[in-house]
Amino acid sequence: MGFVQNLQKNISKNNSLLCVGLDADKAKLPQSVLQLPLPQFAFNKAIIDATLQYVSCYKPNSAFYESCGKEGLESLEKTIEYLHQKDVPVVLDVKRGDIGNTAQQFAISAYDELGADSVTLNPYMGLDAIEPFLNYRDKYSFVLVKTSNSTSGDFQDLYVTSLPSISPVLGVFRAGEQENVYGVAVTTPSPLYMHVARKVLQWNELYNNCGMVVGATYPEQLAEIRALSEQSWILVPGIGKQGGDLEKTLKAGLNKDKEGLILVSAREIIFASSGGDFAEKAGEKAKETRDAINLYR
Amino acid sequence: MGFVQNLQKNISKNNSLLCVGLDADKAKLPQSVLQLPLPQFAFNKAIIDATLQYVSCYKPNSAFYESCGKEGLESLEKTIEYLHQKDVPVVLDVKRGDIGNTAQQFAISAYDELGADSVTLNPYMGLDAIEPFLNYRDKYSFVLVKTSNSTSGDFQDLYVTSLPSISPVLGVFRAGEQENVYGVAVTTPSPLYMHVARKVLQWNELYNNCGMVVGATYPEQLAEIRALSEQSWILVPGIGKQGGDLEKTLKAGLNKDKEGLILVSAREIIFASSGGDFAEKAGEKAKETRDAINLYR
Repeated sequence: MGFVQNLQKNISKNNSLLCVGLDADKAKLPQSVLQLPLPQFAFNKAIIDATLQYVSCYKPNSAFYESCGKEGLESLEKTIEYLHQKDVPVVLDVKRGDIGNTAQQFAISAYDELGADSVTLNPYMGLDAIEPFLNYRDKYSFVLVKTSNSTSGDFQDLYVTSLPSISPVLGVFRAGEQENVYGVAVTTPSPLYMHVARKVLQWNELYNNCGMVVGATYPEQLAEIRALSEQSWILVPGIGKQGGDLEKTLKAGLNKDKEGLILVSAREIIFASSGGDFAEKAGEKAKETRDAINLYR
Repeated sequence: MGFVQNLQKNISKNNSLLCVGLDADKAKLPQSVLQLPLPQFAFNKAIIDATLQYVSCYKPNSAFYESCGKEGLESLEKTIEYLHQKDVPVVLDVKRGDIGNTAQQFAISAYDELGADSVTLNPYMGLDAIEPFLNYRDKYSFVLVKTSNSTSGDFQDLYVTSLPSISPVLGVFRAGEQENVYGVAVTTPSPLYMHVARKVLQWNELYNNCGMVVGATYPEQLAEIRALSEQSWILVPGIGKQGGDLEKTLKAGLNKDKEGLILVSAREIIFASSGGDFAEKAGEKAKETRDAINLYR
């Protein structure tokens, strides 16, 4: 079963658009878990058992495993294996972007070595860096469009004119330009993230396995991006600890079928308690978050 | 010793701006090496011994190790350890970019776990994603500016301004705007890669450990970027197999001291021969490349 089919199956079964971020930061794991072999896997297993019935998918961020060397890598492998046993899709958050022959190696790493069902990708290097992942037709790529962090505007919010210069004097009109009341040519710039979103839609027309990442911390931009396409799957980090507003996010991002969004919460759920009851509390928090999401669907 | 000091020491000692890319693609390793334990490390060790006197630094791309799972990770660790024994700096090519708390984990992975001296980073998410690496003051970050691949223009070449709209009618003047002969305000857009380059220079003013990546396949853009700053260190992949022209690249990118560039060749050197003489041939090719570079300095 392909990623999207499996995702939709879990969305229906659990009536949930929630994705739990398995960011098993070793420094934050409960004492009871740290004594076990492969503590990150032991932690994830308990979290998965407690939250499985409330989620549509899981998203481990590879950074938290890579920072623990070989032990971390083994925990990540076992986590993905366990999620497959439970028949729930895995988005591996790696935010990759590299030239063709190297991207190919990263695709092998994510899909063949680790067995993920989906990845996150960085668009800065263009299609070359994305295509090796899209060639795995049953897998799914989420491309960063407007990210949830506070400096995401450094480049993503720059306005693109697509023209090397604007020539009101010459009055030359080119694609994307408009005439103003004075009859001079002006461009109507749009932000870089909108250009990236449009490119992702083009790529998806070719491959049919390409969606976007848009942070819940930017609901207005999410609405702009949703307006481009009803069908797109949008992965939305930033609810929970990062402070994204649930109601605004859902109003901005749901498609007409009240779907098309996957809402990620990580720390707020998995670290809901640091005591022996961490899994139980994570389960409660996951249920609460799922229900809060459904309130606005 | 910090990265830049060690780099300069090796540049002087070996009279070389060459960086050998240790992209030890397992599918391309010679038969003689594949029978050894940790074949990627065995291969790298032989390549390093044969090329050490002709280089300024080495650049392993993490993709080729990650795609081999735990064995690959161990080979990468041992390669970096071996390079430290030889007192030559290591640029770990990972092209990272993630939100703050996650970028912190990647920094731990690259610097504390793997022991690299420098990394490559992706700018799309802005300063948040870069800062955790810059906080390691003796280490060094190379930020992607204009990449060597053929689709790098998809976004990097878009002309951008920092203004939401251009208002010739209102005549409002803001930073970065110019007045034309009609007295109306117009911005002068420049390509995204130039915006990124200027940001990198700002970050470097604050941290003094931040350079750029510019592909040898784009010498005109390299010249534009060099014109922004004499002091910047620019890492230049794309000579060798990727087809970048050495003479054009050096004319475009060297600073007035005939330095400031690190030129990366990977496949052309490390896979110069697939036979039992692979290391010897790599040494010859490295010497030849170093000398070809020096011809145009």
